[in-house]
Amino acid sequence: MTSKSLRADAERNRRQVVAAAGEVFAERGLDAPLDEIARRAGVGNATLYRRFPTRCELVAAVFADTLREVVAAAEQSLVHPDPWTGFAEHLSFVCELQATNRALADLFIARLSGVPELERLRARAFRHLVEVIDRAKSHGALRQDFTHEDVALVLMANAGLVERMGDAAPTASRRHLSNLLHGLRATPPSAVAAPPTQRQVLRAMTTLAERHGCAS
Amino acid sequence: MTSKSLRADAERNRRQVVAAAGEVFAERGLDAPLDEIARRAGVGNATLYRRFPTRCELVAAVFADTLREVVAAAEQSLVHPDPWTGFAEHLSFVCELQATNRALADLFIARLSGVPELERLRARAFRHLVEVIDRAKSHGALRQDFTHEDVALVLMANAGLVERMGDAAPTASRRHLSNLLHGLRATPPSAVAAPPTQRQVLRAMTTLAERHGCAS
Repeated sequence: MTSKSLRADAERNRRQVVAAAGEVFAERGLDAPLDEIARRAGVGNATLYRRFPTRCELVAAVFADTLREVVAAAEQSLVHPDPWTGFAEHLSFVCELQATNRALADLFIARLSGVPELERLRARAFRHLVEVIDRAKSHGALRQDFTHEDVALVLMANAGLVERMGDAAPTASRRHLSNLLHGLRATPPSAVAAPPTQRQVLRAMTTLAERHGCAS
Repeated sequence: MTSKSLRADAERNRRQVVAAAGEVFAERGLDAPLDEIARRAGVGNATLYRRFPTRCELVAAVFADTLREVVAAAEQSLVHPDPWTGFAEHLSFVCELQATNRALADLFIARLSGVPELERLRARAFRHLVEVIDRAKSHGALRQDFTHEDVALVLMANAGLVERMGDAAPTASRRHLSNLLHGLRATPPSAVAAPPTQRQVLRAMTTLAERHGCAS
């Protein structure tokens, strides 16, 4: 092999690992087994560890673009003519990302560190979020006692809901946020998302029981 | 050994296993390893499996009394002079139980089956909860579009919040429910619980990053 084809080979391996990691993280969360990622990428464990010596470097390779999207979304929300809508839309955007991907559910609430690029993006996303909140408060649209820390509670609760509801009720996350926003707005909003059906909730509850080995 | 002392021995073993299971489930959740329970009870795995052939039988032995407490609390809420307070207090009671015990966090939302006693108690607790909701709605205190399924969302979100927040912010669960109740009440309530501090939230987020092996 020439050194050029060696580089091409290495680059192809890298792309396969990142693609596989994206799938496995999405399905199983940020703590998914690295062995499974190597297996799905069709590379050996040694190759994976050579390219990404820490889990966090792999997380950064997979999710840096998503964090850039979050930053861009926050910038849009900041210039929305209605500060309440800007706030509600941005929180909905982040909760929706959490709902579609188990790794993203925890990416926003775990203080990942060790990779400067990832830290820089997270810090920027958080700084923008704070601005979105402060703008909605300063316009009297968001309850004055809502704090930056409250956002962490919303995202942790949403991550837990998404994990437990699974794919039984795809709208559950939207409904939960909608119920919360209803209570956060200084003046009540007009519309609330529809609740899930009984069948959807029972399906999620049965799946949870199966996970604990207690379903008949 | 006489048959009497054999029985006393068996009974002591059983109590040790149930006590150990209570501790281990509380710390690690309903899917805690049974080996760890046997170890902490000071009995062999074979003894544990002889007494409790399924995990669910062990769960029933540990938590039947708690479910009875929930049923009793719901009965009290049903006769509270103010239907809104009855509803808010009962939901707070259940969320508080979830916050104090990782197993209880999931006990209420997993459809455990296989042990008739446990199923009977869960069905009764749920029936009462539905009555508490319907009473608050029929008095115009609770939003008319709040459904029985919404309760599952509240409890799943709370379970996830409790799990992620750990012991960093003991009041996080109360604040989250309080924000929700604020949005659920047909007429706005007067008081909302205080948010957690920044230090508390950062501690939880750092712990989550450590769990994923991404803390510096």
